[in-house]
Amino acid sequence: VTTRPLTFLSDYGYEDEFAGVCRGVIAAAAPASSLVDLTHGILRGDIRAGAIVLERSLPFCAPGVHLAVVDPGVGGDRRAVAIRTAAEDRFLVGPDNGLLSPAAARFGGAAEMVDISLSPARLEPVSATFHGRDLFAPVAARIALGDQLADLGETVDPAGLIGIELPEPKISPEGIIAHVIGFDAFGNLSLNVSHEQLVAGPLRLGAPIAVEIRGEVHEAAFARTYAEVPIGALLAYEDSSRTLALAVNSGSAADLLGAGLDEAITLRPR
Amino acid sequence: VTTRPLTFLSDYGYEDEFAGVCRGVIAAAAPASSLVDLTHGILRGDIRAGAIVLERSLPFCAPGVHLAVVDPGVGGDRRAVAIRTAAEDRFLVGPDNGLLSPAAARFGGAAEMVDISLSPARLEPVSATFHGRDLFAPVAARIALGDQLADLGETVDPAGLIGIELPEPKISPEGIIAHVIGFDAFGNLSLNVSHEQLVAGPLRLGAPIAVEIRGEVHEAAFARTYAEVPIGALLAYEDSSRTLALAVNSGSAADLLGAGLDEAITLRPR
Amino acid sequence: VTTRPLTFLSDYGYEDEFAGVCRGVIAAAAPASSLVDLTHGILRGDIRAGAIVLERSLPFCAPGVHLAVVDPGVGGDRRAVAIRTAAEDRFLVGPDNGLLSPAAARFGGAAEMVDISLSPARLEPVSATFHGRDLFAPVAARIALGDQLADLGETVDPAGLIGIELPEPKISPEGIIAHVIGFDAFGNLSLNVSHEQLVAGPLRLGAPIAVEIRGEVHEAAFARTYAEVPIGALLAYEDSSRTLALAVNSGSAADLLGAGLDEAITLRPR
Repeated sequence: VTTRPLTFLSDYGYEDEFAGVCRGVIAAAAPASSLVDLTHGILRGDIRAGAIVLERSLPFCAPGVHLAVVDPGVGGDRRAVAIRTAAEDRFLVGPDNGLLSPAAARFGGAAEMVDISLSPARLEPVSATFHGRDLFAPVAARIALGDQLADLGETVDPAGLIGIELPEPKISPEGIIAHVIGFDAFGNLSLNVSHEQLVAGPLRLGAPIAVEIRGEVHEAAFARTYAEVPIGALLAYEDSSRTLALAVNSGSAADLLGAGLDEAITLRPR
Repeated sequence: VTTRPLTFLSDYGYEDEFAGVCRGVIAAAAPASSLVDLTHGILRGDIRAGAIVLERSLPFCAPGVHLAVVDPGVGGDRRAVAIRTAAEDRFLVGPDNGLLSPAAARFGGAAEMVDISLSPARLEPVSATFHGRDLFAPVAARIALGDQLADLGETVDPAGLIGIELPEPKISPEGIIAHVIGFDAFGNLSLNVSHEQLVAGPLRLGAPIAVEIRGEVHEAAFARTYAEVPIGALLAYEDSSRTLALAVNSGSAADLLGAGLDEAITLRPR
Repeated sequence: VTTRPLTFLSDYGYEDEFAGVCRGVIAAAAPASSLVDLTHGILRGDIRAGAIVLERSLPFCAPGVHLAVVDPGVGGDRRAVAIRTAAEDRFLVGPDNGLLSPAAARFGGAAEMVDISLSPARLEPVSATFHGRDLFAPVAARIALGDQLADLGETVDPAGLIGIELPEPKISPEGIIAHVIGFDAFGNLSLNVSHEQLVAGPLRLGAPIAVEIRGEVHEAAFARTYAEVPIGALLAYEDSSRTLALAVNSGSAADLLGAGLDEAITLRPR
């Protein structure tokens, strides 16, 4: 019997030992397990950003135990849960605050869910502020070792998993009204337009477009990659998650456009 | 025979390859070993912060080899040491500058200590500025493989391990005069008041308190967790290390109070 | 049969999940493999910095598969390659933009090279912007598992590997005209003067020197390590890569000198 592989995503950052201590707890409980750190750089408390990154990353990781902690409500009344997905039998462990729902949906939804707040696997005394260490990591380790969900918490209705609000884009023959749903450290802006929506819209690869934000219009191209436009030029492109994004070749679209999270941006052929 | 698990803490940060090269040295010498990075985000040269984080983290990690490098005096005359603790047979490897002493004390103190400056395991030529790579990592790897301390350095009196100065709080029926001993990236302030000292003091869970710093008084609550106070409100609480801390719900106590390291803060019932 | 050990260096940073997803791809394809993260903190797009760090780090790592991604031209016409070095049979995987050539040279040069742009190991559809995930990581995993290079890409002339420009220092009995080729997060400046060049020059260990930048002269010492000069004092020293460097004891030479990348600095006995 081998252990299930683990992945770990959080907003704990890198300055503190929080992610490291969670890794220590898992290594102590499941010494033969392997763990991949997806990132601990999620913007503090940004549940939606964590949810999007988790959902985009997991298809590239082997099915296993996927620990995720972005938990501004720790110690409050949000539930702590572990989920088995309908497809691929992946296990998601974390707070029930929306963080897990896009990833669960990507794999057919939650087929089984347990509330692990009083899990027999928890480390006593459970602190009020560090459930990553005392609750989520120990439960993830037990699942990696092959424990059944039903032995790790109280079975609850998987339909009760908390969802997350995402803005909807408007696609018409005139253009696309999209919203900023994320940034990366390269200054690229992620928009809420999927590959399928993009294909149905009016933008054509290689064609010049207009990008409008707060009444200000920028010239850009709809390109395949950065290198297809001059250095410093704005481009719209389908990013590596196959969703619409804005970038500046060797620069920062976030700086150029000054866009905030959820802000509306209109893209039109010109 | 299996290798002992390793943990690694340093102030090398993440921009440079220093921590990575130490990991490479360990993986080359002990390919079957497993290593948990606790953090490499200790404030540069802050021996005391490193010592506190190490001492708080190790109880959650399996006994093994605990490599720690916060070493502003590298190349000077501080000793390089490896220690076996009296309890749990844990091994600590690092500079003898105070970094290791709280963790050693947590596990019954140093039962055995060797000076590894001229260890046969060292990588020659030992650089004057990177003992993590040339001295500490290779010795840690040999201990992970099962080597005896006496074969890795010169046996010295474990009572000679350098200690670390921590301010003492004043607890009275009127209040607690505490000192700031650390910050985390959430902006929470760590104070030098243990669970036992806190229980002996006048603060009562759920009660309003006054937090005074430099003559300025802030209203706060003594709560169990962030979620028990309104967003933006200051709270005192027992943190996940069971020591007294100050936080702002969804904000930064460090920003609100403008407190510096070692600064005195008085907490009183009101 | 065991898998070859991997190392991974990039400029992906820590905020985003890019490095983590590459790790996930490798762990999925080669579950028993071990991977050491050298650093993901290379300054964005700084191919030369990545090349220098890679070349300095690998001698301390076991021979294996060395994945490196600093790739500002992703999606353009730079080649994607995998190399076997003449010495030690190390495998380098990354963009053919200069990043790999110093490391290859350190191990006898490239003995074998394949263009992996259309590798059968690639993940389809290959994105235009994330070749780390879709191309480099899957190829690295296959090499770790023992695949032959010839099965992973199109064999090309290893002499065609793109090199990298480094400035040349001027060494004379009067002094050394060096150039800044890197910084670390401690504020230390790395100069383009090797151990051999340094020994041939006029600086003597322990002697006072003058450090001139942009006409401004600073007093310094040529020392073995930080601790040999007073706190706040400037020193030149041979760093842990055995190349010339400038530091301030417990301070930042970068801040003191205000030096930029490639800037000329003259060091003279005084």
